[in-house]
Amino acid sequence: MNTFGNALRLSIWGESHGAAVGITLDGVPAGIALSEEDFEHDLARRRSGAQGTTPRRESDRPQLLSGIYEGVTTGAPLTILFQNEDTRSRDYTVLTHHFRPSHADRVAQVKFDGKNDPRGGGHFSARLTVALVAAGVVAKKMLPAEVQFSTRLTAVGGERDAERFEQVIAAAQAEGDSVGGVIECRVEGLPTGWGEPFFDSAESLIAHLLFAIPAIKGVEFGDGFAVAARRGSENNDPILDSHGTTASNHAGGIDGGITNGNPLIVRAAMKPTPSIAREQLTYDAECDCVAPLQIKGRHDACVALRGAVVVEAAVALALADLSRRA
Amino acid sequence: MNTFGNALRLSIWGESHGAAVGITLDGVPAGIALSEEDFEHDLARRRSGAQGTTPRRESDRPQLLSGIYEGVTTGAPLTILFQNEDTRSRDYTVLTHHFRPSHADRVAQVKFDGKNDPRGGGHFSARLTVALVAAGVVAKKMLPAEVQFSTRLTAVGGERDAERFEQVIAAAQAEGDSVGGVIECRVEGLPTGWGEPFFDSAESLIAHLLFAIPAIKGVEFGDGFAVAARRGSENNDPILDSHGTTASNHAGGIDGGITNGNPLIVRAAMKPTPSIAREQLTYDAECDCVAPLQIKGRHDACVALRGAVVVEAAVALALADLSRRA
Amino acid sequence: MNTFGNALRLSIWGESHGAAVGITLDGVPAGIALSEEDFEHDLARRRSGAQGTTPRRESDRPQLLSGIYEGVTTGAPLTILFQNEDTRSRDYTVLTHHFRPSHADRVAQVKFDGKNDPRGGGHFSARLTVALVAAGVVAKKMLPAEVQFSTRLTAVGGERDAERFEQVIAAAQAEGDSVGGVIECRVEGLPTGWGEPFFDSAESLIAHLLFAIPAIKGVEFGDGFAVAARRGSENNDPILDSHGTTASNHAGGIDGGITNGNPLIVRAAMKPTPSIAREQLTYDAECDCVAPLQIKGRHDACVALRGAVVVEAAVALALADLSRRA
Amino acid sequence: MNTFGNALRLSIWGESHGAAVGITLDGVPAGIALSEEDFEHDLARRRSGAQGTTPRRESDRPQLLSGIYEGVTTGAPLTILFQNEDTRSRDYTVLTHHFRPSHADRVAQVKFDGKNDPRGGGHFSARLTVALVAAGVVAKKMLPAEVQFSTRLTAVGGERDAERFEQVIAAAQAEGDSVGGVIECRVEGLPTGWGEPFFDSAESLIAHLLFAIPAIKGVEFGDGFAVAARRGSENNDPILDSHGTTASNHAGGIDGGITNGNPLIVRAAMKPTPSIAREQLTYDAECDCVAPLQIKGRHDACVALRGAVVVEAAVALALADLSRRA
Repeated sequence: MNTFGNALRLSIWGESHGAAVGITLDGVPAGIALSEEDFEHDLARRRSGAQGTTPRRESDRPQLLSGIYEGVTTGAPLTILFQNEDTRSRDYTVLTHHFRPSHADRVAQVKFDGKNDPRGGGHFSARLTVALVAAGVVAKKMLPAEVQFSTRLTAVGGERDAERFEQVIAAAQAEGDSVGGVIECRVEGLPTGWGEPFFDSAESLIAHLLFAIPAIKGVEFGDGFAVAARRGSENNDPILDSHGTTASNHAGGIDGGITNGNPLIVRAAMKPTPSIAREQLTYDAECDCVAPLQIKGRHDACVALRGAVVVEAAVALALADLSRRA
Repeated sequence: MNTFGNALRLSIWGESHGAAVGITLDGVPAGIALSEEDFEHDLARRRSGAQGTTPRRESDRPQLLSGIYEGVTTGAPLTILFQNEDTRSRDYTVLTHHFRPSHADRVAQVKFDGKNDPRGGGHFSARLTVALVAAGVVAKKMLPAEVQFSTRLTAVGGERDAERFEQVIAAAQAEGDSVGGVIECRVEGLPTGWGEPFFDSAESLIAHLLFAIPAIKGVEFGDGFAVAARRGSENNDPILDSHGTTASNHAGGIDGGITNGNPLIVRAAMKPTPSIAREQLTYDAECDCVAPLQIKGRHDACVALRGAVVVEAAVALALADLSRRA
Repeated sequence: MNTFGNALRLSIWGESHGAAVGITLDGVPAGIALSEEDFEHDLARRRSGAQGTTPRRESDRPQLLSGIYEGVTTGAPLTILFQNEDTRSRDYTVLTHHFRPSHADRVAQVKFDGKNDPRGGGHFSARLTVALVAAGVVAKKMLPAEVQFSTRLTAVGGERDAERFEQVIAAAQAEGDSVGGVIECRVEGLPTGWGEPFFDSAESLIAHLLFAIPAIKGVEFGDGFAVAARRGSENNDPILDSHGTTASNHAGGIDGGITNGNPLIVRAAMKPTPSIAREQLTYDAECDCVAPLQIKGRHDACVALRGAVVVEAAVALALADLSRRA
Repeated sequence: MNTFGNALRLSIWGESHGAAVGITLDGVPAGIALSEEDFEHDLARRRSGAQGTTPRRESDRPQLLSGIYEGVTTGAPLTILFQNEDTRSRDYTVLTHHFRPSHADRVAQVKFDGKNDPRGGGHFSARLTVALVAAGVVAKKMLPAEVQFSTRLTAVGGERDAERFEQVIAAAQAEGDSVGGVIECRVEGLPTGWGEPFFDSAESLIAHLLFAIPAIKGVEFGDGFAVAARRGSENNDPILDSHGTTASNHAGGIDGGITNGNPLIVRAAMKPTPSIAREQLTYDAECDCVAPLQIKGRHDACVALRGAVVVEAAVALALADLSRRA
C-alpha cells in the first residue's frame, strides 16, 4: 500500500521519470504556518551537490496544492507536488530484460506483469523520497517545539571517523563503485507516552517507515544489536527521578514500545547504491544468459549522504502520527 | 493499535494476569484443515521448560472459538483464546510506584493515567506472544506448501558457538542475571513478488510485527548492518537465471521491498530480559527517591530461547498478509 | 472485514451455533467504570421475550475478558465474550442445498466455497448483534454525559400508530408471517464538529455500521428521502444563534458531514425477517428444482422490536469513534 | 479521513478555489488501458450546461500524473489532478461570520478553529466530486466487462414523471430556488459473492461512499424503506435456479451484505442545493443577530442532475474495492 499512518495518514505516488511525484498528508491540524521556504533546508540536505552524490539537479520546488489558506494549514489534506524536471529521455528498454543486480527491475516486472514503468526504476525510484522529506518538514512542525532532531552519518563504507568519509567515498567513486553507510537519528524533548500497544509500538511505526526507504537493510534502537550480547544487569536503564530520567539509555528512549522521555535513538543501515559504473555480469532475458551490464547515467557514490534527511523525515512522520494518537 | 494487517488482519488482546489472552485472525481463507493439535509443536517451542526459561507452566491449550466448522476454516474470523491458568495472586502494588528498570511499568502508568493493569506487566506482558505464536501456526498453513521456515538462535550473550549457549545462560542464571540473543529466521520457497510499494515493503511489514514483540531492539535483512560497510560491487547480488536466482544473497531475498525468490533472511536482536533476580537501584515514587528493588517471581534467564518461535510467527504473519495481496 | 473504526476499532467474531460470539474494542480510554450490570439494560432490550420475538432465551451474560482492572477500563483492548448456550443441535444439512429465500445461505456457500458454517446462518446470524449491543454500551459511556439517545420504532408493517404495533405483529404471526419496521434514533447533546471530511462524514460512518446489521435496507438522516421532494427555501435550516441552533432541523443535525450541535436524527428501515413459518417455494440444489421449503425453529415475527437497541448501538459506536478523532 | 477503501484505496484532496483537486487510487491492477479521453463521457455528465446547473464551465481536463506508462496502468498509484481554472476572485469574508444555512460554513469554522478555507466551501465543496467521478471511470474499467451501470433521476422536487423534470426545475429557478431529487443506480452483471461480513457488507461500503457526497441524505437498497411496510412472505425473493436468479428482487441484489448475482439497485436522496438566490434570514456573528443573507454567484437549481454520475462513481468504487477482495 502507498498509504501509511492512522491519525496522520500519508499517501505517496509518482515515478522517477513520470510527470511528478507527490504526497498527501491527511490529519495535519489546522493552524500551522507553512511556506515553500520552510522546505528549503531539508530539501537542500537531500539534494545532489556534495561529493559522492549524483550531479542531477532538480529545482525540487514544492507546490502546496491543498490544505493551505493564507499561509496556514486548514486541517484539510495537504498535498505537496514536485514536478520532475530533469528527466532526460533515454531508452530504458534494456532494463526490461537485462535486470540490474540488487535493483527492483526484475521483481517489479514479475509483480506487475511487465507493465511497470521501467524508466529510472519507476515507482521504486529513490526519487519518491523527495516527497517523504517534504512530508517530514510538515511532521516536524506538528511536534512540540522542544522536540529536536539531530541526524548524522556514523559510518561510511566501514569507516567510523567522520573526517575520513570524503576520502572513503572518493576512493570508491574513483573505482566506479559505491559505499554504504549508517545513519543515526537522535530525537530529544519527547514526552513519555507515545507509542501504542500492541502492534503500533514506537519502534514498529518508525521501523515500518524506515524500511520503506530504498536501500535500508537494518534498523536498531538504542544500543540495538549490541544488547543481544549483554547481561540484563548491564543493559537495564535504572530510573533516577519522577520524570523518568534514566542513568543510561541503552533502550534508546523506548520501553515497552512507548517513549520514556529520554532521547530516542535509532540507527539505519543503508546499503551501497547498486547502481555502479563498473561492469557487472548478470542475467539478460533477451539472450537467456548471463551478460555484462554497464549501467549508464549519473549515480551517487554514497546515497547515505542524502539519506540522512530521509531517515529523519521518516522518524518525524512516525512520531507525528503517534503524537496525534496519544 | 492492537490490530495489524490488511488482507489478513490480526486483533490481539489480554493481560498477563487477566482471565485470558486471545487473537482474532480475519482474512483466513475458507478450507484450511485446523485442529488444536496443529498448535502443539509451536506452543511447545515457546513454552517454559528448557534451561534458562521460567518454570511457569501453563497448559497453553488453544481454544478455537470461531471461524472453524467440522475442523476446517470457514472464511469467517478465527478466534483463538488461551485461558490464563497459572496466575498466582500476589500483591503487585509495588510496581505502581517502584518501577522496574527497562520495563513498561512507568510508561504504562503515565500513558494510561495510572489505570493500567500492573499485574505482571498487564497488556505489555510477553504472555501475549502465546497468541501471536498460535496465529503464526495459522499463517504458515496459509502459505504455499513449499514455503519452509527455519529459525534458530545465532548468538546468546555474545557467544556465537551454539554448543556453548547453555553454559552462557547457566552462568548468567547463577548470578541472578539474564542474557540477550540474536534470532535468525530463514524462509525458503517464497515466490517472487510479495511486498507492496511504497510503504508496505516486505521488510516494513516484517519489521513492524517484529518490533511489536517485547524485547526486540534490532531487525536486519540479509547481511543487514554489515552491508553499510561494503562497496556496491561486493554487495550486489548478480542474477543468474530466469527464475531470479542470485549468485549471492546479501539482500536476504528482498529487492525494492519485494521478495525476489531467493531465501528470505531476517535477524532480530533480543535484549536480556530486564527482570533479573539481582537487586537493582531505581526510582520509587513512594519515597521520591532511588531505592533498591528486588524483583520477585520466576524469570527467564534468556527469553531469546522462547523468542525464536515468536519471531517465526511474526515473519509468517507478515508474509501471509502479503501473500493475500499479491 | 470484521474490523471497523479508526480511533475506536472494533473486531467482531462468532457464529450463531459456535462456541461463542465476541467483540474487541480497541481505543477505549482508560478510566471508565464498567461492570457486567452496565450491560443488562441494553441486553434486555435486545433479548427475546416481548410478543413477536423468538422465545429463544439466552442468559447473554457478557464476560469482560480484558481491558478491565478493578472495575475500570485500562486503555488496553476490551474484549466482551458471550457464550452460546441455547444452541440446540439439529441437522442443518438442508440449508446447504435448499437455500432459504432472502437469507445469506446461498451467497455464503458460493463465497466461501461451501466451507461456511451453515448452522443458524453461521457468521451471518443476527446473533452477532449481541456483541454489537454490548459494544454500544461501552461506546455510550465514552461519550460526554450530556449526549442522550432515544430510539424507537416509528412504523411496523406500514402502521405508524404505535398503539397498534402489537396488533399488526400478532396478525402476521398468526399467519406464520413476519413484518418489517422503521427505527428512529435521536441523539441530543452532541457538540458541533464531529465527522471527518471527505470520506468519514458522520453520515458515512453511521450508515456504514447500520448497513452491517442484518435486515437493514435503508438509512436516512433528518428528513431523509423527503428532502428530495422539497425546494431549498423549504429545506434549509436557518441558524439562529452563536451556538448554531437552527430554526428547523431538516438536516438531522449534520451539515457537510459534520455534527452541527442540533439533535442528530437517523432512521433505518428493517425488512421483515425472511425466516417465516409459511411454506415457500425456492430452489433446491439437491433436485436442481424449485421445491417447497418449511423453515423450522422459532422466529421473530418482527425483528425490528429487538433491532432498536442494535441501531442505537451502531450509532453510538460511530459517534464514539468520531469523538476520539475530533 | 480523506482516504477510503481496502484493496482499492482512495485519497482525495483539494478545495473549491485552491490550485487544484485530485485523487490517488492505490490498488489499480497493472494492464488497464487508460487515456484522458476515457474520462470525457462521465465528466461531461457531471459538467455544467444543462438547464438547472450552474453556468460555471471548467475544462475539467484530467491530468494523469502517475501510475500510467505508455497508456496502460502500471500497478503503482494512479493520481488524477484537475486544475481549478475558473476561480473568480471574490471576497469570501462574509462566509466567515454570516453562515449560509445548511452549508458547512459554520461547522467547518468550529471544527477547524477558523482556519478552514472559506472560499466556495473550501474542502467541503462539491467541486471535489470531479475527482470522484474520474476515479469512478477507473473503477468501472477494473470491473468485469459484463458489469453494466445505468443511473438515472427517478424524481425531481417530488415529481416522478421524467418528462416534467425540466419544468419543475425551471419553476424553482425562476423563483430563485432549488429542488432535490432521487437518483437510482442499477448495476447488472455482478457475480455472486462480493461483500465482506461483518462490517464491510456491500451495502455498508456503498452507503459509506454515497454519504460522503455532499447533499445526500438518504440511501436505500432494493425496495429500501418500502420493505419496512411489508410482510416477509411478500418481501422474500424466492430463488429459481442454480445461478441464484430470484423471482423478485426486493433485496436489490444483496443478501446478507453479499451480492447475489441479481441486479444491484441503490437509490440516493439528494437535497435541494442550499445555495439559493432568494434572500434568507440566518445568524450573523458580526452583529450577533439574525440578518438577511443574499448568496451571490451562480448556483445549480438541481444538483441531482449532475449528481447521477457522482452516485454511479461511488457505487463503482465500492464495487471495485470489493471485487479485489473477493
